Amino acid sequence: MARTQGSHSDITGPRIREAALGLFARHGYAAVSMRQIAGEVGVQAGALYNYTPDKQSLLFRLMQDHMQELLAAYEELEPQADALGALRQFVGFHIRFHMQRPDEVFIAYMELRNLTPENFAEIEKLRRRYEDALQSILLAGQKDGLFSVQDAKIATLAVIAMLNGVMTWYRAGGRLSLDEVEQIYWDMVRKAVAA
Amino acid sequence: MARTQGSHSDITGPRIREAALGLFARHGYAAVSMRQIAGEVGVQAGALYNYTPDKQSLLFRLMQDHMQELLAAYEELEPQADALGALRQFVGFHIRFHMQRPDEVFIAYMELRNLTPENFAEIEKLRRRYEDALQSILLAGQKDGLFSVQDAKIATLAVIAMLNGVMTWYRAGGRLSLDEVEQIYWDMVRKAVAA
Repeated sequence: MARTQGSHSDITGPRIREAALGLFARHGYAAVSMRQIAGEVGVQAGALYNYTPDKQSLLFRLMQDHMQELLAAYEELEPQADALGALRQFVGFHIRFHMQRPDEVFIAYMELRNLTPENFAEIEKLRRRYEDALQSILLAGQKDGLFSVQDAKIATLAVIAMLNGVMTWYRAGGRLSLDEVEQIYWDMVRKAVAA
Repeated sequence: MARTQGSHSDITGPRIREAALGLFARHGYAAVSMRQIAGEVGVQAGALYNYTPDKQSLLFRLMQDHMQELLAAYEELEPQADALGALRQFVGFHIRFHMQRPDEVFIAYMELRNLTPENFAEIEKLRRRYEDALQSILLAGQKDGLFSVQDAKIATLAVIAMLNGVMTWYRAGGRLSLDEVEQIYWDMVRKAVAA
């Protein structure tokens, strides 16, 4: 019996997250009620509180999971021989990882303002860990004479912002394949930081 | 008497827009009611309808005015001798114009999903006119052998996305002056599209 309930909540958890993610992305966090999320999942509002103490925790967990999955996926990549290879790998990884998660990307940017200060600080810490990975690549390449950037921190933010732009316009089946898009962005990133 | 009423509504209009802009940026369009906007302005909700037929029109007008002001300000710039000068000018203009309008920038991105299809198409048309200005610079520079981009349309979107990134992290009085930021971004943009 306990086992059955456990399995049930294992299934309900992802469905709650998926429903919350979709509703937050479509209507915005502030406009969505716990009742609406429950309605989308097809459970009573009370059932949500077995899974999450409140809407803020739900938002925080969506953003935290997104960042932790990003960091875990990045850390699993093949080590590269030099900074140029590592930068090339970062560009492809960043585009492809985020392309599969348009709602998470939108929320990660848009709903920062709705996090409590403590939760905001936690998400910022994770985001900074990811930025630090790119910044380390740029600094290593700078040291090796491959790259020349005036300010590695700003270059990091500039490259990430440029790559994030893909998510706002790319549609599968459009004029360009994802491989072509990746190639075009790599060409620009490579040149932007080149020595 | 008619004159006095006219003056009154001339003053109220900008106050309604300012209140709506701030509330939309803080809470999101869907979470803000006409009553809240009226409360912020200090008028009855009914008074709002002298100025705007509904909340959708208010959102649309905020976004339309923002884009039209952007285009008008851009068109007033000094003509440049070549594409390199024009690109340098675009970078500085884009950063400085948007830096003064953080709420408009945030809403322009975030609330596109809340526009009706007709209003969305109208805003897209204006946005495209602005993008076309940069694309023309890149194509002219390409023709003159100054620039080399694989795809002028994508390069346009990439440069604008990179520059928009500044608005998410720059704070006046921080480590870098706006002149320094502009210089750092110009260096990266120039190299990213260089022949």
